[in-house]
Amino acid sequence: MKGSALHIALVHYPVLNKRKETIGSAITNLDIHDIARTARTYGVNRYYISTPYKEQSELVEELLSHWRDGYGATYNPARKEALSIVRLASSVGEIVAELEREYKQRPLIITTSAIAQNTTLSYKELASKLNETPVLLLFGTAHGLAPEVMDMADYSLPPIKGGTDYNHLSVRSAASIAMDRLLGD
Amino acid sequence: MKGSALHIALVHYPVLNKRKETIGSAITNLDIHDIARTARTYGVNRYYISTPYKEQSELVEELLSHWRDGYGATYNPARKEALSIVRLASSVGEIVAELEREYKQRPLIITTSAIAQNTTLSYKELASKLNETPVLLLFGTAHGLAPEVMDMADYSLPPIKGGTDYNHLSVRSAASIAMDRLLGD
Repeated sequence: MKGSALHIALVHYPVLNKRKETIGSAITNLDIHDIARTARTYGVNRYYISTPYKEQSELVEELLSHWRDGYGATYNPARKEALSIVRLASSVGEIVAELEREYKQRPLIITTSAIAQNTTLSYKELASKLNETPVLLLFGTAHGLAPEVMDMADYSLPPIKGGTDYNHLSVRSAASIAMDRLLGD
Repeated sequence: MKGSALHIALVHYPVLNKRKETIGSAITNLDIHDIARTARTYGVNRYYISTPYKEQSELVEELLSHWRDGYGATYNPARKEALSIVRLASSVGEIVAELEREYKQRPLIITTSAIAQNTTLSYKELASKLNETPVLLLFGTAHGLAPEVMDMADYSLPPIKGGTDYNHLSVRSAASIAMDRLLGD
Protein backbone atom coordinates (compact mmCIF):
# COMPACT_ATOMS: atom_id res chain seq x y z
CA MET A 1 0.00 0.00 0.00
CA LYS A 2 1.32 3.41 -0.98
CA GLY A 3 0.50 4.95 2.40
CA SER A 4 3.04 2.75 4.16
CA ALA A 5 5.88 4.58 2.35
CA LEU A 6 4.60 7.94 3.61
CA HIS A 7 5.76 9.48 6.89
CA ILE A 8 4.56 12.92 7.83
CA ALA A 9 5.91 15.35 10.39
CA LEU A 10 4.46 18.44 12.00
CA VAL A 11 7.33 20.81 12.73
CA HIS A 12 7.18 23.20 15.72
CA TYR A 13 10.77 24.41 15.35
CA PRO A 14 12.24 26.03 13.31
CA VAL A 15 9.18 27.80 11.88
CA LEU A 16 8.40 31.40 10.97
CA ASN A 17 6.25 33.96 12.74
CA LYS A 18 4.22 36.57 10.87
CA ARG A 19 7.30 38.82 10.62
CA LYS A 20 9.24 35.91 9.01
CA GLU A 21 11.46 35.49 12.06
CA THR A 22 12.46 31.98 13.12
CA ILE A 23 10.62 30.81 16.22
CA GLY A 24 9.42 27.67 18.00
CA SER A 25 5.65 27.20 18.27
CA ALA A 26 3.54 25.55 20.97
CA ILE A 27 1.89 22.17 20.50
CA THR A 28 -1.83 22.37 19.69
CA ASN A 29 -3.98 19.51 20.94
CA LEU A 30 -6.14 19.29 17.81
CA ASP A 31 -3.09 19.26 15.52
CA ILE A 32 -2.20 15.94 17.06
CA HIS A 33 -5.72 14.45 16.97
CA ASP A 34 -6.95 15.74 13.62
CA ILE A 35 -3.82 14.96 11.65
CA ALA A 36 -3.42 11.53 13.31
CA ARG A 37 -7.01 10.63 12.40
CA THR A 38 -6.48 11.67 8.77
CA ALA A 39 -3.10 9.92 8.60
CA ARG A 40 -4.62 6.70 9.97
CA THR A 41 -7.50 6.96 7.47
CA TYR A 42 -5.02 7.10 4.58
CA GLY A 43 -2.75 4.36 5.92
CA VAL A 44 0.18 6.72 6.54
CA ASN A 45 3.05 4.85 8.19
CA ARG A 46 3.94 7.35 10.92
CA TYR A 47 3.07 10.84 12.09
CA TYR A 48 5.94 12.64 13.84
CA ILE A 49 5.44 15.59 16.17
CA SER A 50 8.72 17.49 16.11
CA THR A 51 9.59 19.82 18.99
CA PRO A 52 12.88 20.47 20.78
CA TYR A 53 11.11 21.67 23.95
CA LYS A 54 11.06 19.20 26.82
CA GLU A 55 7.89 20.57 28.48
CA GLN A 56 6.06 20.40 25.16
CA SER A 57 7.20 16.82 24.56
CA GLU A 58 6.00 15.88 28.01
CA LEU A 59 2.56 17.33 27.22
CA VAL A 60 2.39 15.19 24.10
CA GLU A 61 3.54 12.10 26.02
CA GLU A 62 0.77 12.68 28.56
CA LEU A 63 -1.86 13.09 25.88
CA LEU A 64 -0.69 10.00 24.03
CA SER A 65 -0.61 7.91 27.16
CA HIS A 66 -4.16 8.98 28.12
CA TRP A 67 -5.54 7.88 24.75
CA ARG A 68 -3.33 4.87 24.21
CA ASP A 69 -3.22 3.29 27.66
CA GLY A 70 -5.39 5.38 29.98
CA TYR A 71 -9.12 5.92 30.24
CA GLY A 72 -9.26 7.28 26.69
CA ALA A 73 -8.20 3.95 25.23
CA THR A 74 -11.37 2.21 26.44
CA TYR A 75 -13.61 5.25 26.02
CA ASN A 76 -12.58 5.78 22.40
CA PRO A 77 -10.68 2.88 20.78
CA ALA A 78 -10.73 4.64 17.36
CA ARG A 79 -8.74 7.48 18.87
CA LYS A 80 -6.27 5.00 20.34
CA GLU A 81 -5.81 3.50 16.90
CA ALA A 82 -5.20 6.89 15.27
CA LEU A 83 -2.68 7.95 17.92
CA SER A 84 -0.80 4.65 17.68
CA ILE A 85 1.05 6.02 14.62
CA VAL A 86 2.18 9.21 16.41
CA ARG A 87 5.86 9.55 17.39
CA LEU A 88 7.73 12.34 19.13
CA ALA A 89 10.99 13.72 17.73
CA SER A 90 13.22 16.58 18.82
CA SER A 91 14.20 17.71 15.32
CA VAL A 92 13.69 17.07 11.63
CA GLY A 93 17.27 15.78 11.51
CA GLU A 94 16.43 13.15 14.12
CA ILE A 95 13.44 11.94 12.06
CA VAL A 96 15.55 11.71 8.91
CA ALA A 97 18.23 9.74 10.79
CA GLU A 98 15.62 7.37 12.26
CA LEU A 99 14.08 6.66 8.86
CA GLU A 100 17.52 6.27 7.29
CA ARG A 101 18.44 3.62 9.87
CA GLU A 102 15.13 1.83 9.35
CA TYR A 103 15.06 1.81 5.54
CA LYS A 104 18.84 1.74 4.96
CA GLN A 105 18.36 4.73 2.69
CA ARG A 106 17.69 8.42 3.10
CA PRO A 107 13.97 9.18 2.74
CA LEU A 108 12.87 11.60 0.05
CA ILE A 109 12.31 14.84 1.99
CA ILE A 110 9.35 16.91 0.81
CA THR A 111 8.27 20.27 2.20
CA THR A 112 4.91 22.03 1.98
CA SER A 113 4.33 25.77 1.84
CA ALA A 114 1.61 28.28 1.04
CA ILE A 115 4.23 29.98 -1.16
CA ALA A 116 5.42 28.42 -4.42
CA GLN A 117 8.99 27.05 -4.23
CA ASN A 118 11.61 26.45 -6.91
CA THR A 119 11.92 22.68 -6.90
CA THR A 120 8.33 21.60 -7.09
CA LEU A 121 7.03 18.07 -7.50
CA SER A 122 3.33 17.68 -8.37
CA TYR A 123 1.02 15.67 -6.09
CA LYS A 124 0.73 13.08 -8.85
CA GLU A 125 4.50 12.77 -9.21
CA LEU A 126 4.96 12.37 -5.47
CA ALA A 127 2.14 9.79 -5.34
CA SER A 128 3.98 7.69 -7.92
CA LYS A 129 7.28 8.03 -6.01
CA LEU A 130 5.56 6.43 -3.00
CA ASN A 131 5.75 3.17 -4.91
CA GLU A 132 9.55 3.40 -5.02
CA THR A 133 10.95 5.11 -1.95
CA PRO A 134 10.20 6.09 1.65
CA VAL A 135 9.02 9.70 1.86
CA LEU A 136 9.08 12.21 4.71
CA LEU A 137 6.51 14.97 4.16
CA LEU A 138 6.97 18.04 6.35
CA PHE A 139 4.29 20.49 7.49
CA GLY A 140 5.07 23.70 9.35
CA THR A 141 3.09 25.24 12.19
CA ALA A 142 2.79 29.03 12.75
CA HIS A 143 3.60 30.82 9.47
CA GLY A 144 5.37 27.86 7.91
CA LEU A 145 8.69 26.03 7.79
CA ALA A 146 11.85 28.10 8.27
CA PRO A 147 14.33 28.39 5.36
CA GLU A 148 16.77 25.97 6.99
CA VAL A 149 14.12 23.20 6.80
CA MET A 150 13.14 24.16 3.26
CA ASP A 151 16.84 23.78 2.37
CA MET A 152 16.90 20.15 3.63
CA ALA A 153 14.20 19.16 1.17
CA ASP A 154 14.59 17.33 -2.11
CA TYR A 155 11.36 18.85 -3.40
CA SER A 156 8.42 20.94 -2.31
CA LEU A 157 4.75 20.31 -3.07
CA PRO A 158 2.93 23.18 -4.79
CA PRO A 159 0.74 25.42 -2.59
CA ILE A 160 -2.85 24.20 -2.26
CA LYS A 161 -5.00 26.50 -4.36
CA GLY A 162 -8.75 26.78 -4.34
CA GLY A 163 -9.32 29.12 -7.24
CA THR A 164 -9.01 32.27 -5.11
CA ASP A 165 -6.06 34.37 -3.96
CA TYR A 166 -6.73 33.45 -0.30
CA ASN A 167 -4.09 31.05 1.03
CA HIS A 168 -4.53 30.77 4.78
CA LEU A 169 -5.52 27.15 5.35
CA SER A 170 -4.99 25.76 8.83
CA VAL A 171 -2.17 23.21 8.92
CA ARG A 172 -4.80 20.62 9.91
CA SER A 173 -6.76 21.31 6.73
CA ALA A 174 -3.66 21.54 4.53
CA ALA A 175 -2.32 18.22 5.84
CA SER A 176 -5.69 16.52 5.32
CA ILE A 177 -6.00 17.80 1.76
CA ALA A 178 -2.40 16.81 0.95
CA MET A 179 -2.94 13.25 2.21
CA ASP A 180 -6.16 12.96 0.20
CA ARG A 181 -4.43 14.21 -2.95
CA LEU A 182 -1.60 11.71 -2.49
CA LEU A 183 -3.52 8.68 -1.25
CA GLY A 184 -7.26 9.26 -1.78
CA ASP A 185 -9.29 6.97 -4.01
CA MET B 1 -16.83 30.56 -10.32
CA LYS B 2 -18.14 27.20 -9.18
CA GLY B 3 -17.48 27.94 -5.50
CA SER B 4 -20.07 30.71 -5.48
CA ALA B 5 -22.84 28.13 -5.99
CA LEU B 6 -21.68 26.17 -2.97
CA HIS B 7 -23.01 26.80 0.54
CA ILE B 8 -21.89 24.61 3.38
CA ALA B 9 -23.40 24.10 6.81
CA LEU B 10 -22.07 22.57 9.99
CA VAL B 11 -25.00 21.03 11.84
CA HIS B 12 -25.02 20.85 15.66
CA TYR B 13 -28.61 19.58 15.91
CA PRO B 14 -30.01 17.07 15.14
CA VAL B 15 -26.93 14.84 15.17
CA LEU B 16 -26.15 11.41 16.59
CA ASN B 17 -24.14 10.40 19.62
CA LYS B 18 -22.08 7.20 19.74
CA ARG B 19 -25.18 5.20 20.70
CA LYS B 20 -26.98 6.57 17.62
CA GLU B 21 -29.35 8.68 19.72
CA THR B 22 -30.32 12.13 18.45
CA ILE B 23 -28.62 14.92 20.37
CA GLY B 24 -27.45 18.51 20.04
CA SER B 25 -23.69 19.13 20.14
CA ALA B 26 -21.68 22.07 21.45
CA ILE B 27 -19.98 24.55 19.15
CA THR B 28 -16.22 23.98 18.79
CA ASN B 29 -14.08 27.06 18.23
CA LEU B 30 -11.77 25.45 15.69
CA ASP B 31 -14.70 24.08 13.66
CA ILE B 32 -15.62 27.67 12.91
CA HIS B 33 -12.08 28.88 12.15
CA ASP B 34 -10.70 25.90 10.24
CA ILE B 35 -13.74 25.32 8.04
CA ALA B 36 -14.16 29.06 7.35
CA ARG B 37 -10.53 29.30 6.26
CA THR B 38 -10.89 26.35 3.91
CA ALA B 39 -14.23 27.61 2.58
CA ARG B 40 -12.75 31.03 1.89
CA THR B 41 -9.75 29.40 0.15
CA TYR B 42 -12.09 27.57 -2.22
CA GLY B 43 -14.39 30.52 -2.86
CA VAL B 44 -17.38 28.93 -1.11
CA ASN B 45 -20.30 31.36 -0.98
CA ARG B 46 -21.35 30.94 2.63
CA TYR B 47 -20.59 28.79 5.67
CA TYR B 48 -23.56 28.32 8.00
CA ILE B 49 -23.21 27.29 11.65
CA SER B 50 -26.50 25.67 12.56
CA THR B 51 -27.56 25.47 16.22
CA PRO B 52 -30.96 25.94 17.89
CA TYR B 53 -29.34 26.85 21.25
CA LYS B 54 -29.39 30.53 22.11
CA GLU B 55 -26.32 30.44 24.41
CA GLN B 56 -24.34 28.67 21.72
CA SER B 57 -25.41 31.21 19.07
CA GLU B 58 -24.34 34.01 21.36
CA LEU B 59 -20.91 32.43 21.73
CA VAL B 60 -20.54 32.31 17.96
CA GLU B 61 -21.73 35.93 17.64
CA GLU B 62 -19.09 37.00 20.16
CA LEU B 63 -16.34 35.14 18.37
CA LEU B 64 -17.39 36.54 14.99
CA SER B 65 -17.60 40.06 16.29
CA HIS B 66 -14.11 39.82 17.87
CA TRP B 67 -12.55 38.75 14.58
CA ARG B 68 -14.70 40.85 12.26
CA ASP B 69 -14.96 44.16 14.12
CA GLY B 70 -12.95 43.86 17.33
CA TYR B 71 -9.24 43.62 18.05
CA GLY B 72 -8.95 40.45 15.96
CA ALA B 73 -9.88 42.30 12.77
CA THR B 74 -6.76 44.45 12.88
CA TYR B 75 -4.54 41.78 14.43
CA ASN B 76 -5.37 39.21 11.75
CA PRO B 77 -7.16 40.56 8.64
CA ALA B 78 -6.96 37.16 6.92
CA ARG B 79 -9.08 35.70 9.71
CA LYS B 80 -11.57 38.52 9.34
CA GLU B 81 -11.84 37.72 5.66
CA ALA B 82 -12.43 34.01 6.29
CA LEU B 83 -15.07 34.65 8.94
CA SER B 84 -16.90 37.15 6.73
CA ILE B 85 -18.62 34.22 4.97
CA VAL B 86 -19.89 32.66 8.24
CA ARG B 87 -23.62 32.89 9.08
CA LEU B 88 -25.59 31.63 12.04
CA ALA B 89 -28.80 29.65 11.56
CA SER B 90 -31.13 27.94 14.00
CA SER B 91 -31.94 24.94 11.79
CA VAL B 92 -31.26 23.31 8.46
CA GLY B 93 -34.81 24.23 7.44
CA GLU B 94 -34.05 27.89 8.05
CA ILE B 95 -30.96 27.73 5.83
CA VAL B 96 -32.90 26.03 3.03
CA ALA B 97 -35.65 28.68 3.27
CA GLU B 98 -33.08 31.50 3.19
CA LEU B 99 -31.38 30.11 0.10
CA GLU B 100 -34.73 29.45 -1.56
CA ARG B 101 -35.74 33.10 -1.08
CA GLU B 102 -32.39 34.30 -2.37
CA TYR B 103 -32.14 32.09 -5.47
CA LYS B 104 -35.89 31.74 -6.17
CA GLN B 105 -35.33 28.00 -6.22
CA ARG B 106 -34.73 25.27 -3.69
CA PRO B 107 -31.01 24.48 -3.35
CA LEU B 108 -29.82 20.98 -4.06
CA ILE B 109 -29.39 19.48 -0.58
CA ILE B 110 -26.42 17.17 -0.19
CA THR B 111 -25.44 15.27 2.95
CA THR B 112 -22.12 13.78 3.97
CA SER B 113 -21.58 10.68 6.07
CA ALA B 114 -18.87 8.22 7.03
CA ILE B 115 -21.40 5.50 6.13
CA ALA B 116 -22.43 4.84 2.52
CA GLN B 117 -25.98 6.01 1.70
CA ASN B 118 -28.46 4.90 -0.95
CA THR B 119 -28.71 7.95 -3.17
CA THR B 120 -25.10 8.78 -3.80
CA LEU B 121 -23.71 11.39 -6.14
CA SER B 122 -19.97 11.26 -6.89
CA TYR B 123 -17.75 14.26 -6.13
CA LYS B 124 -17.30 14.74 -9.86
CA GLU B 125 -21.05 14.72 -10.51
CA LEU B 126 -21.66 17.24 -7.74
CA ALA B 127 -18.83 19.45 -9.01
CA SER B 128 -20.52 19.63 -12.41
CA LYS B 129 -23.90 20.42 -10.82
CA LEU B 130 -22.30 23.50 -9.25
CA ASN B 131 -22.36 25.02 -12.71
CA GLU B 132 -26.15 24.70 -12.82
CA THR B 133 -27.72 25.09 -9.40
CA PRO B 134 -27.14 26.42 -5.87
CA VAL B 135 -26.04 23.63 -3.55
CA LEU B 136 -26.26 23.25 0.23
CA LEU B 137 -23.71 20.75 1.51
CA LEU B 138 -24.31 19.53 5.07
CA PHE B 139 -21.73 18.26 7.55
CA GLY B 140 -22.65 16.73 10.90
CA THR B 141 -20.81 17.19 14.19
CA ALA B 142 -20.60 14.46 16.89
CA HIS B 143 -21.29 11.07 15.25
CA GLY B 144 -22.94 12.50 12.17
CA LEU B 145 -26.22 13.89 10.84
CA ALA B 146 -29.44 12.44 12.30
CA PRO B 147 -31.79 10.47 10.00
CA GLU B 148 -34.26 13.38 9.77
CA VAL B 149 -31.55 15.52 8.12
CA MET B 150 -30.42 12.68 5.87
CA ASP B 151 -34.08 12.41 4.75
CA MET B 152 -34.15 16.07 3.64
CA ALA B 153 -31.31 15.48 1.18
CA ASP B 154 -31.52 15.04 -2.56
CA TYR B 155 -28.26 13.11 -2.55
CA SER B 156 -25.40 12.11 -0.32
CA LEU B 157 -21.69 12.22 -1.12
CA PRO B 158 -19.84 8.91 -0.76
CA PRO B 159 -17.78 8.44 2.43
CA ILE B 160 -14.19 9.67 2.16
CA LYS B 161 -11.97 6.61 1.91
CA GLY B 162 -8.23 6.45 2.26
CA GLY B 163 -7.58 2.85 1.33
CA THR B 164 -8.03 1.54 4.88
CA ASP B 165 -11.08 0.50 6.89
CA TYR B 166 -10.56 3.39 9.34
CA ASN B 167 -13.22 6.09 8.89
CA HIS B 168 -12.94 8.50 11.79
CA LEU B 169 -11.91 11.76 10.16
CA SER B 170 -12.59 14.93 12.14
CA VAL B 171 -15.38 17.00 10.60
CA ARG B 172 -12.76 19.71 10.00
CA SER B 173 -10.66 17.32 7.93
CA ALA B 174 -13.65 15.81 6.13
CA ALA B 175 -15.01 19.24 5.18
CA SER B 176 -11.59 20.37 3.93
CA ILE B 177 -11.13 17.25 1.81
CA ALA B 178 -14.67 17.52 0.41
CA MET B 179 -14.15 21.14 -0.65
CA ASP B 180 -10.83 20.25 -2.29
CA ARG B 181 -12.42 17.36 -4.17
CA LEU B 182 -15.23 19.61 -5.40
CA LEU B 183 -13.33 22.83 -6.10
CA GLY B 184 -9.57 22.13 -6.00
CA ASP B 185 -7.40 22.71 -9.05
